[in-house]
Amino acid sequence: MNFENYYQNKLEFFESYLSKNFPKIPEEATLLEEAMRYSLFAGGKRIRPILLLATLEAADKNCALGLPHACALEYIHTYSLIHDDLPCMDNDDLRRGQATNHVKYGEDIALLAGDALLTHSFALISDQNLVGPVPSDIMLTIIQLVSQKAGIYGMVSGQTADIIKYQQPTPIEAVNFIHRNKTGALITLSIQIGAILAGLDKTTLGHLIDFGDEIGKCFQIQDDILDETGSSESIGKTPGSDSKNEKLTYPSIVGLEKSYEYANESLKKALDSLKQTGLKDKRLEEIAKYIVHRER
Amino acid sequence: MNFENYYQNKLEFFESYLSKNFPKIPEEATLLEEAMRYSLFAGGKRIRPILLLATLEAADKNCALGLPHACALEYIHTYSLIHDDLPCMDNDDLRRGQATNHVKYGEDIALLAGDALLTHSFALISDQNLVGPVPSDIMLTIIQLVSQKAGIYGMVSGQTADIIKYQQPTPIEAVNFIHRNKTGALITLSIQIGAILAGLDKTTLGHLIDFGDEIGKCFQIQDDILDETGSSESIGKTPGSDSKNEKLTYPSIVGLEKSYEYANESLKKALDSLKQTGLKDKRLEEIAKYIVHRER
Repeated sequence: MNFENYYQNKLEFFESYLSKNFPKIPEEATLLEEAMRYSLFAGGKRIRPILLLATLEAADKNCALGLPHACALEYIHTYSLIHDDLPCMDNDDLRRGQATNHVKYGEDIALLAGDALLTHSFALISDQNLVGPVPSDIMLTIIQLVSQKAGIYGMVSGQTADIIKYQQPTPIEAVNFIHRNKTGALITLSIQIGAILAGLDKTTLGHLIDFGDEIGKCFQIQDDILDETGSSESIGKTPGSDSKNEKLTYPSIVGLEKSYEYANESLKKALDSLKQTGLKDKRLEEIAKYIVHRER
Repeated sequence: MNFENYYQNKLEFFESYLSKNFPKIPEEATLLEEAMRYSLFAGGKRIRPILLLATLEAADKNCALGLPHACALEYIHTYSLIHDDLPCMDNDDLRRGQATNHVKYGEDIALLAGDALLTHSFALISDQNLVGPVPSDIMLTIIQLVSQKAGIYGMVSGQTADIIKYQQPTPIEAVNFIHRNKTGALITLSIQIGAILAGLDKTTLGHLIDFGDEIGKCFQIQDDILDETGSSESIGKTPGSDSKNEKLTYPSIVGLEKSYEYANESLKKALDSLKQTGLKDKRLEEIAKYIVHRER
């Protein structure tokens, strides 16, 4: 199967589970359900879920084992986008080619939809019926990791440094911190959860985390580049949003050409780490390359 | 020990643990830490933590066992207040006698501080070193409950119905739904977690949940009453906020006098349920009475 078909295949497998397992919400809060669904089913690339499933397969495990966790990561990613787009944050009107959540439902409901998605992500990964044959201790380890990497030891701290335009000790070190936490943390986490569920040994896990850190970096450099070079049709959001918000990005600090170089360097490091795992599967390598070369 | 001293004693026990266990936050996000601390240590009544600790003691257990969970509930309660106060929600400037979080730190940081508190609450209750000698399965059961009651099967759905001024099928039934979910869910949960950690049997747990549901109701009726009759000095927030925001409240539907009656009726039901548990301790009864008769 070529990579495009593989990705499409995994995407459909994941989408079907995500849709089937969307929770029943009290009728008094139907609008909340609508707002949650609006952003959750808006045609995201599902990179985090697919990384998680691919890691399980690379370790010769049935990827279905990781579906609840893959959903949780997508809930968290979606909540972060809804909150990021709010007027008090990046004030974006367009996301994935559609009106952002608050433009559609109002800021109050968008805020609550984000809160609900974040909270429910923990319902998904603490549900023993849903998660199935994973030992309780492993479930707790993963919940602990998710709550750290989505929170103060990851996404929220990265977001904070981004918002306050942190520049210490140098802009390039600051942008590395921001990207490593704001975007990288959840990308590495996807791979890490897959590896933990697969029961991989510590050394292999270490190499996979290095791989994750580097592709997280690639992902964000490419995001920065697309924000500068893409059209709203191709990227599905308003381009130039970073520079409008005076965000610290790789292109703003080192220029476009050097940013491409950084992305390629990072990809090379990622593939070196992946090689050291000794895993035979080629899909993680293909996903890494897709992340650097994607157009949206 | 009289009740006032007892409450003060438990309060200090809890505050000391809360303070000692506040997480270390990366220096790039120092402002996030400040904003989190600002609201978390703003002199709240700590009713949920104290209910949890008192339930453990009522079951003859060492209440220290419940400290991480008590913290988590206070993190969640604090996040909900920060988000509720935002301009797009209730737009309140004053909370516990001080400027609200967004007035002090800006809407963006307030939003992120709320997100961080919510996320970190799950780090507290999934940390086996912190939680200590509680079996993993029990920890998962509690995480599952928290994620439901703080989310779509509790607080966030109640908040949504409140925001959209849901009035179906009748205003009084709608206000019951709102209060049961927006405030009641977390209050009942405090008692429920205490009972689960104490290993109480299903029947006793059932009576305690009934007790929790009724005092949650008392709590909110009294909150509605105070919003109408209190001064900003006594209640620490701007009075009349509910009617300014055209919120559905007991006084707005049935008037003040009937609201007092409802609160007393609910207190009576609560105490009946408590009696049926057969627990000898008097503290839960005293806390219930305090909830109805408090002035802030």
